Amino acid sequence: MTHSIAIIGASGYTGAELIRIIATHPSFEIKALAANSKAGQSIAQVFPHLRHLDLPKMVTWEEIDFSGIDLCFCALPHKTSQEVIAQLPKSLKIVDLSADFRLRDPAAYQKWYGNPHAALEMQAEAVYGLTEFYRDVIRGARLVAGTGCNAATGQYILRPLISAGVIDLDEIILDLQCGVSGAGRSLKENLLHAELSEGTNAYSVGGVHRHLGEFDQEFSALAGREVKIQFTPHLGPFNRGILATAYVRGEADAVLSTLQAAYADEPFIHVLPKGQTPSTHDVRGSNFCHIGVVADRLPGRTIVVAALDNLFKGSSGQAVQNANLMLGEDEAAGLMLAPCFP
Amino acid sequence: MTHSIAIIGASGYTGAELIRIIATHPSFEIKALAANSKAGQSIAQVFPHLRHLDLPKMVTWEEIDFSGIDLCFCALPHKTSQEVIAQLPKSLKIVDLSADFRLRDPAAYQKWYGNPHAALEMQAEAVYGLTEFYRDVIRGARLVAGTGCNAATGQYILRPLISAGVIDLDEIILDLQCGVSGAGRSLKENLLHAELSEGTNAYSVGGVHRHLGEFDQEFSALAGREVKIQFTPHLGPFNRGILATAYVRGEADAVLSTLQAAYADEPFIHVLPKGQTPSTHDVRGSNFCHIGVVADRLPGRTIVVAALDNLFKGSSGQAVQNANLMLGEDEAAGLMLAPCFP
Amino acid sequence: MTHSIAIIGASGYTGAELIRIIATHPSFEIKALAANSKAGQSIAQVFPHLRHLDLPKMVTWEEIDFSGIDLCFCALPHKTSQEVIAQLPKSLKIVDLSADFRLRDPAAYQKWYGNPHAALEMQAEAVYGLTEFYRDVIRGARLVAGTGCNAATGQYILRPLISAGVIDLDEIILDLQCGVSGAGRSLKENLLHAELSEGTNAYSVGGVHRHLGEFDQEFSALAGREVKIQFTPHLGPFNRGILATAYVRGEADAVLSTLQAAYADEPFIHVLPKGQTPSTHDVRGSNFCHIGVVADRLPGRTIVVAALDNLFKGSSGQAVQNANLMLGEDEAAGLMLAPCFP
Amino acid sequence: MTHSIAIIGASGYTGAELIRIIATHPSFEIKALAANSKAGQSIAQVFPHLRHLDLPKMVTWEEIDFSGIDLCFCALPHKTSQEVIAQLPKSLKIVDLSADFRLRDPAAYQKWYGNPHAALEMQAEAVYGLTEFYRDVIRGARLVAGTGCNAATGQYILRPLISAGVIDLDEIILDLQCGVSGAGRSLKENLLHAELSEGTNAYSVGGVHRHLGEFDQEFSALAGREVKIQFTPHLGPFNRGILATAYVRGEADAVLSTLQAAYADEPFIHVLPKGQTPSTHDVRGSNFCHIGVVADRLPGRTIVVAALDNLFKGSSGQAVQNANLMLGEDEAAGLMLAPCFP
Repeated sequence: MTHSIAIIGASGYTGAELIRIIATHPSFEIKALAANSKAGQSIAQVFPHLRHLDLPKMVTWEEIDFSGIDLCFCALPHKTSQEVIAQLPKSLKIVDLSADFRLRDPAAYQKWYGNPHAALEMQAEAVYGLTEFYRDVIRGARLVAGTGCNAATGQYILRPLISAGVIDLDEIILDLQCGVSGAGRSLKENLLHAELSEGTNAYSVGGVHRHLGEFDQEFSALAGREVKIQFTPHLGPFNRGILATAYVRGEADAVLSTLQAAYADEPFIHVLPKGQTPSTHDVRGSNFCHIGVVADRLPGRTIVVAALDNLFKGSSGQAVQNANLMLGEDEAAGLMLAPCFP
Repeated sequence: MTHSIAIIGASGYTGAELIRIIATHPSFEIKALAANSKAGQSIAQVFPHLRHLDLPKMVTWEEIDFSGIDLCFCALPHKTSQEVIAQLPKSLKIVDLSADFRLRDPAAYQKWYGNPHAALEMQAEAVYGLTEFYRDVIRGARLVAGTGCNAATGQYILRPLISAGVIDLDEIILDLQCGVSGAGRSLKENLLHAELSEGTNAYSVGGVHRHLGEFDQEFSALAGREVKIQFTPHLGPFNRGILATAYVRGEADAVLSTLQAAYADEPFIHVLPKGQTPSTHDVRGSNFCHIGVVADRLPGRTIVVAALDNLFKGSSGQAVQNANLMLGEDEAAGLMLAPCFP
Repeated sequence: MTHSIAIIGASGYTGAELIRIIATHPSFEIKALAANSKAGQSIAQVFPHLRHLDLPKMVTWEEIDFSGIDLCFCALPHKTSQEVIAQLPKSLKIVDLSADFRLRDPAAYQKWYGNPHAALEMQAEAVYGLTEFYRDVIRGARLVAGTGCNAATGQYILRPLISAGVIDLDEIILDLQCGVSGAGRSLKENLLHAELSEGTNAYSVGGVHRHLGEFDQEFSALAGREVKIQFTPHLGPFNRGILATAYVRGEADAVLSTLQAAYADEPFIHVLPKGQTPSTHDVRGSNFCHIGVVADRLPGRTIVVAALDNLFKGSSGQAVQNANLMLGEDEAAGLMLAPCFP
Repeated sequence: MTHSIAIIGASGYTGAELIRIIATHPSFEIKALAANSKAGQSIAQVFPHLRHLDLPKMVTWEEIDFSGIDLCFCALPHKTSQEVIAQLPKSLKIVDLSADFRLRDPAAYQKWYGNPHAALEMQAEAVYGLTEFYRDVIRGARLVAGTGCNAATGQYILRPLISAGVIDLDEIILDLQCGVSGAGRSLKENLLHAELSEGTNAYSVGGVHRHLGEFDQEFSALAGREVKIQFTPHLGPFNRGILATAYVRGEADAVLSTLQAAYADEPFIHVLPKGQTPSTHDVRGSNFCHIGVVADRLPGRTIVVAALDNLFKGSSGQAVQNANLMLGEDEAAGLMLAPCFP
């Protein structure tokens, strides 16, 4: 059965990645593409790499006839997303890729994003979209909020460990390197090739990165008590990929076996043999996440490293995975694309 | 119907790309992977990015039982390839990705590659694998020789123009930039990140690049007279992609309409609107080739630019395209993967 | 003797490069830095890599007291530059890095840059700043117009060959790759790391790049007849460097000996041994230009490749070289910095 | 006064960087260059980017006449270095850039490097070359052992904090990203452009990186008790630069003021204003180290980030800084080259 799909915010990187994935999806068909700043343009004008696809022209989202749409992906910036989604048909299935519906507590939203939420009633309805942990409720959800790319990577490492009680909840450090597509297609000096290539820097240092809102919410809920981690992201001179290095207190063997058990049946999460750690090169352009565990030389301390593609598993691939569930398809449909190396 | 596939030389970049493509091919199944230097290793050991695939272990090519194999890809270095292929079953369908069977004239082979050919009788049997121009004979071929990646790019620009007689045959210059994966996985100083990134250089300057053997053979045959072009490749600090810039004498309108007519029905070759030129970014990770035509300010001179992915359309994708034909499948089966951008 | 220097347009890449060079120049001292959009900021705020230097704060150019300034570098965008320079003291020595005073013919300026020139009387006074060829007149000049970075590279190859009459003037093709800093610090999508890295494309194809105005002017003047070359630039995924590949008709030996003779005494232009061609890696961060000559396999055709750093020899280093002459210093003062490799 | 310099191991990256620095050093003159694998070659053959320099040909180190040499840099691989240095004249001043004389305890050397030390008597004589902390003893030393590049970066952050007692000695985590030139010019698959660019990975995870030997030695000596940190390096897709992110227990204000006091008079170590963190882009190609301090959201925890150029401040620049002291020159002579950005 073919499902009719609309994408709002189709001219950004996550929009392009959605189209790329759906291009070879067995049962999704794109019926509408909206990008208000590019309305009237063809896909070849907006994304020349997708010119081989027979797709509708870009329109404004207001122009879309949603009557024939089975599911809509919203790939808009946060704040804009909630404003648009509030105006969409109430029966429409939506996967939102923005940050707008990730935080269940309106106060937390306002704290991390700086503005009061404009669609509070929908915030309550939204389901957090980290598929492997919210699978059952996603199946029945109308509105799913995609996990942040950094937040997803950290949670793949830490959720099973917190749930299993194998690590100290007060001593978690997550150090992370993110590729530049995570910053989107915005025109900022520090994202220029001349300024980013050939070097790296930390950003949002000291616990001010917005994805901490997700970590706090999810880890505290899991643990049944407040859990606050330390988290430092770095901007790396590569386009796709997140590498997260977690420093935890706990025995490596327990950490490894907990992760192996948690992901034994997962199609996209691969736990590496003991002592091996992953590379972002190995997941680029795919929905896979690789995780490795190493015992530190200091007794009782363990390092866990995870790699995924921020645009794919961290955003658009995760969104399609959730859409598959919402539409009754096989969860992995269209998502087994192999990583692109070299 | 599922076809059983073997790959010899599976541990190089073109081998990896074959596996990546076949991973989502609807009717190919990999039954054997050979890499003599890696025999005994799992795919996860050789290519961690393919660890999600359920594949046989690497063996030596001598260990393969070819009785159940429908088609074998040979992704070995030239010279080795002819020696191995000479020992394979005579009835086995083979797509060779090396340079060993591209040149029909043994003297030309020896001139460009420096050694006498070791499988002359098979050289006569081999079909040149530039699919769009040898489609019919490839369908019935037993041994197909994959076109060189630079040679393919240049031919996509020039073959229709030579055939149509719209350009001066004595004034053809092909200037080309190639990504580093075109040099394979060899350990050479100039391929190190520290030496290649952040700059560029020409190589094989002056008409000594081996792919000129293919250009000479094919263009002269097309024209019915000797045609010798000038060709300068450059090594660029990127992994995938070839950008070829051709300087020809002829009217841009005639050049454009000739290319449009030649590729009107081709699924993978896209001629851009007049005045636009392509980027390798737009074809990375795909089987597509984009071609653009621009009139120079000097009357009667035209510039044609083509972009493709050397590993995909220039090598492994082209090989699968040919294998599809040889096995009676749809030519585009498994090859509609969208380019990976950004 | 120490010379007092002002820089207007100090917040762009060529401004930064001027400061970097002058930081270790034996007799230049920066007395004023102007960048109207950054007025009031310290050098550490605008360019953290220069924070070790004891420099004046950024001001608006109108705030500079020119009475104590010996020479002023203008590193503004074209059009703005002529407007500002028209208002500077008439006795001030100026090296302009923009395109505004390169073309002696006002009609040519208007043709290539699209607007009438706003400082015609100064245009007549300006000296073209390609040091090796205008050295004597630069010494006595008040206003020197820096050569365009692509234009400089092409002229280093072609001027001696045109003067010596060893190549066909109607058959010159210049194919060129330029690093992204050549586009300046402007916020454009195609300059983002995510869009530029990992690939390449041609631009200004067909003879529309503005540096052709310089080529036309200079080559025609040299030859005593109209000379129009073909010129195609490409944007490469690296920050610094231009590699120009010229296809000319002429004997390689004559081409090589002509270039060797022309540059025998030049401190910054190095002609490589016959058959070798340069890499941009070898000149990055320096004032050097390397040139190599190779005979093509087609008789009577020769390929010449040149490499320089667009920001250094192509812009700010050239500017300092000219300033040295204008101020009576050794031409190479402060410019013998070795290239930065790897 | 001009000092005569020899470099053994001149064909690697640190050798090239030594030559680059000395090229504009006011009082060093290179009298001999040794690289046994390249003996007989000119500098232009080994390092084309240094072809403008008038330098002696490469010889074997055995061929050097040390009678006229004031100081010798040894840029050989570890193990080879100790074997060669053991045979050099006993009166020769030596700065060794290898790991061979960094560890004072022979057992520690054997533990971390796997072989017994072959020059034990010289190991006792060697002075640890972290200039800012060993300045006085370096002045009188005959043999100085250059600090490891990662080890230097971590020590610039941590030494003052340990000495001042402002952080918890049992809770130090150092997470680090290093550019690929840190791995030298060795031919390994993971250092190829095709495998390294566009991604990142951790290595030597779990406390097995050899530079931990230096951390253990130095921090324990400073603290007067055993101090063992956690340390995870990552390989980044850039050529030069180390970014170290330290997670410590201590008040940010105390940490910041301690670092400010420690480095107030240092020419090369810059402590950034509170809340700012550095980028490797800002120190590339220079002898500077930038350090920034940020308070974490968790009370009592602080993040300190440091950036330096592994080849320059982390190796060859540090070596020249030490040589300046050993030869009675100004410590900063030849080392004020400004970073190369962009």
